[in-house]
Amino acid sequence: MKRILLLATGGTIASKSGERGLVPTLHSEELLRYLDRYREDFVFDAEDILDLDSSNIQPEEWVLIARRVHSALEHYDGVLITHGTDTLAYTAAALSFMLGKVRQSVVITGSQLPIENPLTDATTNLFTAMEVIRMGIRGVTVAFDRKIIRGTRAVKVSTMGFDAFKSVNAEYIGEIYADGTRLYSPFETNTTEAPKLLDELCTDVFLLKLIPGTRPELLDRILDMGYRGLVIEAFGAGGIHYLNRDLLTRLNRLVDAGIPVVICSQCLYEKCDFTIYEVGHKILAQGIIPGRDMTTEAAVTKLMWALGQTEDMKEIRRIFDTDYVGEVSLE
Amino acid sequence: MKRILLLATGGTIASKSGERGLVPTLHSEELLRYLDRYREDFVFDAEDILDLDSSNIQPEEWVLIARRVHSALEHYDGVLITHGTDTLAYTAAALSFMLGKVRQSVVITGSQLPIENPLTDATTNLFTAMEVIRMGIRGVTVAFDRKIIRGTRAVKVSTMGFDAFKSVNAEYIGEIYADGTRLYSPFETNTTEAPKLLDELCTDVFLLKLIPGTRPELLDRILDMGYRGLVIEAFGAGGIHYLNRDLLTRLNRLVDAGIPVVICSQCLYEKCDFTIYEVGHKILAQGIIPGRDMTTEAAVTKLMWALGQTEDMKEIRRIFDTDYVGEVSLE
Repeated sequence: MKRILLLATGGTIASKSGERGLVPTLHSEELLRYLDRYREDFVFDAEDILDLDSSNIQPEEWVLIARRVHSALEHYDGVLITHGTDTLAYTAAALSFMLGKVRQSVVITGSQLPIENPLTDATTNLFTAMEVIRMGIRGVTVAFDRKIIRGTRAVKVSTMGFDAFKSVNAEYIGEIYADGTRLYSPFETNTTEAPKLLDELCTDVFLLKLIPGTRPELLDRILDMGYRGLVIEAFGAGGIHYLNRDLLTRLNRLVDAGIPVVICSQCLYEKCDFTIYEVGHKILAQGIIPGRDMTTEAAVTKLMWALGQTEDMKEIRRIFDTDYVGEVSLE
Repeated sequence: MKRILLLATGGTIASKSGERGLVPTLHSEELLRYLDRYREDFVFDAEDILDLDSSNIQPEEWVLIARRVHSALEHYDGVLITHGTDTLAYTAAALSFMLGKVRQSVVITGSQLPIENPLTDATTNLFTAMEVIRMGIRGVTVAFDRKIIRGTRAVKVSTMGFDAFKSVNAEYIGEIYADGTRLYSPFETNTTEAPKLLDELCTDVFLLKLIPGTRPELLDRILDMGYRGLVIEAFGAGGIHYLNRDLLTRLNRLVDAGIPVVICSQCLYEKCDFTIYEVGHKILAQGIIPGRDMTTEAAVTKLMWALGQTEDMKEIRRIFDTDYVGEVSLE
């Protein structure tokens, strides 16, 4: 019998109506009751490691979760994490990097409505997560709305719809249909190594989403404030303004000061490409790290993780030129 | 015969290959040649008002474009603006607010490949824009990939695909099919007033996209730097962290200092709703302005526009409680 650890962290799935709106209050043992039908084939343990609305789940909590998952991996075939949807994609990406290539299933799910609501999506999402473990899909994944998404590719795109998560710039790993689960991209990690936890994160990473008119002096402030890394959501395939308000020169200063700058797109889909436009050539010349087709969630957490391991710019560039857990398409 | 003014601003549509990638170089007269087939029914004038990669189009350029469009409206039935795609959605939203309810067609288009490329989407996009003017669809719209999008609802979602723009949280105004143009939401402004230009913009608006761990002291810096307005892309339906790193208290300070704070979602689709979660109730209690279902592009440009008219917080709140040009769904 497969052994499963259910880790509850709070979120809508575990919420009940309070006086001032929904609050996470259900315990993991109560969530486990909804998995009773699986008890013939699986043995469950349940733990409450957090009790938070996921807006309050931050890097310190990712480390806490990663450590618990890592220590559980030698005793369990799968870890099922319930989590609020708001920052679920960030947690999934962060866990993906920290845990690396794992042989077991580490599947994260949540719901748009509380599990006790008769119209809830929580049970379907939990059952999708169970399907991930049953099929032995390795690594960190997100199970939501009958879809299985790589942990580094999930993005929450809808605030109310039940199809809240999309797999961005990567196929779904699988989807559940009436005739069974269709696997598109099983993401075989084929690792025989023991799982290795790399749980140092540098939280001094700033995300700057550009708007027309973003002031260059902001970049100096980022340096003053002691940030050690910057992710920019640029326009389109990587556009940044340099006329009138010259962001490029300031970015150059950041790079010269040893601050890695990663550029992604603020478009949800497809890659940054600095080779197409003249503007892009200027950017590449500044020593900026292209985020390629990474999601912002993956780019931010990867930079926190990279800076947790090293401050050496060359090494950080090498980390960004490497695909660790399906987070980036390299040419 | 309908009179049309073609305003060229640069962008990929007008680009040619230079030594270091694409650069906007074609003039409006050259673009006009692609509209020769319309000369039987339309009279054209063409002007080059800018010659920029749209990453470099900023609020000052929006004002320049808005003024030229406004002065043209009494002489033309339609103004067709060609523009780079990177910041096209921001320009479309800004023009929508500055021009208000206009009786004529002000349609913006561009392309993902230069017009001289045999596989270009530029001609289809130009012809879609011509269809907007031919049908007399009023107000500011975006024409792209045979779709017609309200100026305040367009978002660039793909960096490479030809279906680069989506209509977010609103129906397409129309779509072109083989059997003709299907109008879903003609957006009749029914105005008989003369168009009124409100072209004061305050560029001191900061956009903050949250990540787990965003540092509260950043909000103090925003105040120090003289920003007069803040738009936050929060998590999910409007989540903001307040444990460990307390953003809420700092936001309260900003509001107390007379800085309007508008909260949108970093999810592409659907609304913010602060009534559902306990976290949301805390946020509303801080006097924050809900962005509802506005796109970030619309929220940022609306705040620049609102602050251009008034510094009075009550008045800014009233402006955000008003739907001017289809930018927001009010309950």
